[in-house]
Amino acid sequence: MDVDIAFDDDGLVPAVAQDADSGEVVMLAYASPTAVERTHETGLAHYYSRSREELWQKGATSGNVQQVREVRVDCDADAVLYLVDQEGGACHTGHESCFHRSVEAVDGDESGVTAEVSVVGERVFDPDEVYE
Amino acid sequence: MDVDIAFDDDGLVPAVAQDADSGEVVMLAYASPTAVERTHETGLAHYYSRSREELWQKGATSGNVQQVREVRVDCDADAVLYLVDQEGGACHTGHESCFHRSVEAVDGDESGVTAEVSVVGERVFDPDEVYE
Repeated sequence: MDVDIAFDDDGLVPAVAQDADSGEVVMLAYASPTAVERTHETGLAHYYSRSREELWQKGATSGNVQQVREVRVDCDADAVLYLVDQEGGACHTGHESCFHRSVEAVDGDESGVTAEVSVVGERVFDPDEVYE
Repeated sequence: MDVDIAFDDDGLVPAVAQDADSGEVVMLAYASPTAVERTHETGLAHYYSRSREELWQKGATSGNVQQVREVRVDCDADAVLYLVDQEGGACHTGHESCFHRSVEAVDGDESGVTAEVSVVGERVFDPDEVYE
């Protein structure tokens, strides 16, 4: 069965990376068509950096690459899931997962939300040693 | 520690729902400030439907609600993760997860990608019986 991936007006889809062994969701970023292709070809997770406006191989700087075992597409084909073996940690803060803050309380209205959070994930590397 | 959730220009953040027991990533949708607040207040996952342009409690129609055990915020505070107990299945197709298609091959260029996929997840309910 063939599926056209439904990239948005910016030519991107959200890409969730999940550790294939632990099941931990380690990050959410965005993928361009080229990023999806490159990921499939190389077996290494690629994304598109919206801030740097460029294709980005995860771990190219830090060494914390993601070996991709499988790529999944959701029912609307407008999001992808990378099942990965995460080298080191995924987060630039040194945590295994970017989702390392748990919401304890919420204060907000229709225009925004301030969340009181606590850190739940462990740091697995020292970012000062990895990013120079 | 307080964190301002970084909603995008449309006032939304991507929200990933993960089954808290199985670890399966069951869906990705979007949350408005009100959706995040309502989720925290009620313990039931709320999203914002971009197509219907309205707040949406997951399972309000199908009964396949998501009891939210925990909400996580990522390092940039521009994505959230709901850890849920999923009633029935998350996907409108009857599958447990919306990410039930695995990419086997990729054909594309800078403007788009066609993916050859195979179905890997099981159907856990019959959508014809759930959505009338």
